[in-house]
Amino acid sequence: RYAVQGMLIYRKAALIVVREMQKILEENLEKAEHEPVLFPVLIPEDILKKESEHIKGFETEVFWVTEAGKKVLDKKLALRPTSETPVYTMFSLWIRSHKDLPMKVHQSCAVYRYETKQTRPLIRGREFLWNEGHSAFKNLDDAEKNVEEIRKIYGDLLNDLCIPYRIHRRPEWDKFPGASYTLAYDTLIEGKILQIATIHNLSEKFSEAFNIKYEDEEGNHKFVRLTCYGPSFGRLLAFLLNIYKDESGLKFPAKFAPTQIVLVPIFAKGNKEDVLKYCREIKEKLVQFRVVLDESDKTPGEKFYYWEKRGAMLRIEAGPRDIENNEVVVVRRDTRKKEKIKKD
Amino acid sequence: RYAVQGMLIYRKAALIVVREMQKILEENLEKAEHEPVLFPVLIPEDILKKESEHIKGFETEVFWVTEAGKKVLDKKLALRPTSETPVYTMFSLWIRSHKDLPMKVHQSCAVYRYETKQTRPLIRGREFLWNEGHSAFKNLDDAEKNVEEIRKIYGDLLNDLCIPYRIHRRPEWDKFPGASYTLAYDTLIEGKILQIATIHNLSEKFSEAFNIKYEDEEGNHKFVRLTCYGPSFGRLLAFLLNIYKDESGLKFPAKFAPTQIVLVPIFAKGNKEDVLKYCREIKEKLVQFRVVLDESDKTPGEKFYYWEKRGAMLRIEAGPRDIENNEVVVVRRDTRKKEKIKKD
Repeated sequence: RYAVQGMLIYRKAALIVVREMQKILEENLEKAEHEPVLFPVLIPEDILKKESEHIKGFETEVFWVTEAGKKVLDKKLALRPTSETPVYTMFSLWIRSHKDLPMKVHQSCAVYRYETKQTRPLIRGREFLWNEGHSAFKNLDDAEKNVEEIRKIYGDLLNDLCIPYRIHRRPEWDKFPGASYTLAYDTLIEGKILQIATIHNLSEKFSEAFNIKYEDEEGNHKFVRLTCYGPSFGRLLAFLLNIYKDESGLKFPAKFAPTQIVLVPIFAKGNKEDVLKYCREIKEKLVQFRVVLDESDKTPGEKFYYWEKRGAMLRIEAGPRDIENNEVVVVRRDTRKKEKIKKD
Repeated sequence: RYAVQGMLIYRKAALIVVREMQKILEENLEKAEHEPVLFPVLIPEDILKKESEHIKGFETEVFWVTEAGKKVLDKKLALRPTSETPVYTMFSLWIRSHKDLPMKVHQSCAVYRYETKQTRPLIRGREFLWNEGHSAFKNLDDAEKNVEEIRKIYGDLLNDLCIPYRIHRRPEWDKFPGASYTLAYDTLIEGKILQIATIHNLSEKFSEAFNIKYEDEEGNHKFVRLTCYGPSFGRLLAFLLNIYKDESGLKFPAKFAPTQIVLVPIFAKGNKEDVLKYCREIKEKLVQFRVVLDESDKTPGEKFYYWEKRGAMLRIEAGPRDIENNEVVVVRRDTRKKEKIKKD
């Protein structure tokens, strides 16, 4: 474990799963006219504190940069706990007319919260990966339509991930600081509720605090309506790791398995090169999947065990007899069913 | 411009170019057996200061987190200026035997340097996007082979980007703090040298400071040899923006154009729907490219001007006469040559 409490190192398998979720989500957000953006990680104190309820909700959780080089900074800089305040600062410059609306942006990034409760890897961290969407609309009606659109997009992602959930409207005391209402996506992990995503329909406090106005068709200046929303990639991954496993190890939905197919060559004396060549030919036919050909010195049994633990969802074995018959042995990770199929 | 000096907001067009570079680079690094990783952005003071030359090189440039919530932290945390120190902390745990070597990791991330010279967007920023590779080897020979391998990978990326460069070995006083030697990729921008990537072959100071040892085939414990390397995505983008333009606007290499093809429908009275339908059919045939169908209310002339400025490398015009002949008019951004081609 790393030396900063509540902060994780992502290695390959976890990153593959996160990238896969991120790809699906970003594609759908961009189809729904969201512009990808990337804001700086630092937020000046005065911008973070512009909306009073919002900062009250986060002030015990913010990491502050106060020094740079050997200097004390004139103005403290926050590591973003979430990005409403910098995004709205720019919205107030980018939005002029009704023609600029709707304006929808999203970014995949890390956010920082100094959790005082006990931290738990992926579930309650001080740095976590998420995607955040921020949108501005002419009126409440358009904002409500956006909430529906995002419910569809998040629902599709969660279905793809085979994660069951319920949407709860949070009570007043538990909603996002500055929101008119908050919808939360809750699932269960070890018998406890885990919030994996939220959608907030904001009151006009933010558009007033940041002075985000547009000129409508008749030349009147009006405040925009804002929504913001985000799923936590870390928690989605935590759910998968917790649920999709059995006594032998991980058992992910095929689409998200870090290794989808493992090829295990079965060597007999003196035929190593032939078997490897045969396996490489098979690997080339499977380029659309994440395939590993395990050429290590371990025994086949050790390899089976290793790859079951890591959740390779399909194992293909090939030895001298299979080459003769132009076949391979295929074993599914989930049902453990074994069958011989033709190579082609 | 954003309220933190030296920090940028990336919007869609810039992000598309960065993602494209990143994809090419990551694919090639992963083909060369680099594992993708993602380390936390914060580095505890004692880890950052473990190698004395290294910290001397960076100490005037580090952003420090000293407060969290309403508390002053016991231990200051640095925003990573580069990630040798946390990566090597983990290498000393991950590497045990010669079988663990070579170990190669890479991450695409933002790094933070409090530049005291005047900041310039993308060229000298306080937050910049890059990819950093970190590798450990049994001996100098393997480390040198890795330097060759990375030269090939960076060379391919720069050729793809049509960026001319020369590799210079930096003099002693200008090499990376803690390196045995530094190779720098230099290009020219506005008559000045711009360093766009570096490769460092490190002396044993780092492996000694972080105690990164392996057991060789004979059971002897030896220090590993380390290399690290990175190109700056921000500076690569700065080069493209600076060079690939003419009096009408951007003129990027086709592969990196944020919009590769723009479809401009030419309406005549009463046929708007027919022309749009025709254009949508064409758009569907071009899914492998980044295509925009400009349905806005602007005149064709305004659209031509707008998309030339933004560097759409191919413009396709289609009006009623083209529909009759089952043709389209195609105009190249670079040569401005105009020709009619069949729709299919």
